[in-house]
Amino acid sequence: MGGSFLSFEGIDGSGKSTQARRLAAALQAAGRAALLTREPGGSPGAEEIRRLVLEGEPDRWSAETELLLFTAARRDHLEKTIRPALARGEVVITDRFADSSRIYQGMTRGDLAGTVDALHALMIGVEPDLTLLIDIDPEVGLSRAMARKGTEQRFEDMGLDMQRRMRAGFLALAAAQPARFRVIDGARPEAEVAAAVQDAVFRHLGL
Amino acid sequence: MGGSFLSFEGIDGSGKSTQARRLAAALQAAGRAALLTREPGGSPGAEEIRRLVLEGEPDRWSAETELLLFTAARRDHLEKTIRPALARGEVVITDRFADSSRIYQGMTRGDLAGTVDALHALMIGVEPDLTLLIDIDPEVGLSRAMARKGTEQRFEDMGLDMQRRMRAGFLALAAAQPARFRVIDGARPEAEVAAAVQDAVFRHLGL
Repeated sequence: MGGSFLSFEGIDGSGKSTQARRLAAALQAAGRAALLTREPGGSPGAEEIRRLVLEGEPDRWSAETELLLFTAARRDHLEKTIRPALARGEVVITDRFADSSRIYQGMTRGDLAGTVDALHALMIGVEPDLTLLIDIDPEVGLSRAMARKGTEQRFEDMGLDMQRRMRAGFLALAAAQPARFRVIDGARPEAEVAAAVQDAVFRHLGL
Repeated sequence: MGGSFLSFEGIDGSGKSTQARRLAAALQAAGRAALLTREPGGSPGAEEIRRLVLEGEPDRWSAETELLLFTAARRDHLEKTIRPALARGEVVITDRFADSSRIYQGMTRGDLAGTVDALHALMIGVEPDLTLLIDIDPEVGLSRAMARKGTEQRFEDMGLDMQRRMRAGFLALAAAQPARFRVIDGARPEAEVAAAVQDAVFRHLGL
């Protein structure tokens, strides 16, 4: 049984991290080995790069340098965590992957979209087999995120209008690659969202 | 008076760091503002990335991840140190720049030469106005480096044969871009090498 590479994407407060955890548990309950990981980070080296990017002054790195650091972290994550698990036949579930760079660096910080794609093609080259986009109205996401420390601040830093643009960006990526993306309505109760995710993934895996 | 961007390149033990310092002093004595910097590093952020790459286990990063980290450091160095100094009209002298990546990552660690060039074109895009290649027989370089702590170990790690291949690589770069490179015979006494460097640079700057 070969491995499978799944990613969760979405704006802050969409509930994607919770859904990634629930999916990993559901797969394990169904007898499939599942590895849950996240970006930025996901390997010891990538977590060190994550700290370098996220700690310190907010604007210490330019958008281009930040993109290079995140790509270095992704390369390490791919080599040290994702590929070995796929080779063992596991289902790898990552909370964010390259689509997040396409949105966060490519859309929100300068006109870097083409650079993000070229750098990905040059240094990463792979996409998930299936991407679950947990789609939510940013105002709903904000009210959820208010309950959680850390996320709220990021929301306020970026602003509701930016979150709306990022949601539209994710939906445009999904529309451009319908074979890879499944758009899941994240506004429903958590268990209903989990059922929709599980249905999409189990179908994909033939379970 | 516009700024000028100069780099020194060469294998370990070539004496390029000493020559870079002497050139900066000679320019300042001639009344030109000169900024001496180095890679990897050269800006506070790039120095942090340098520590991330060079500390810890020697093979903790793959050649590709290391290349991405060095390119991130170079981008920061360019934005925070080199470009502002050029804008102030200074002569920027860097001890290593992208040619070192072409040799150290592109030649010695896998067949990454094409990737190094593509990544440079995508994320850095600039070359020095003039590059001083301090050329030396690796056996001479080794005997010099033996006197210096740190360098000796690196030499032994890489081996004399690898240093010979790197010397040939630098000479091939210089032959391919004769307008940018000046090849300086580094086997002569330090003061003679310094005079040759100064002659080449002062001519270039019209001093």
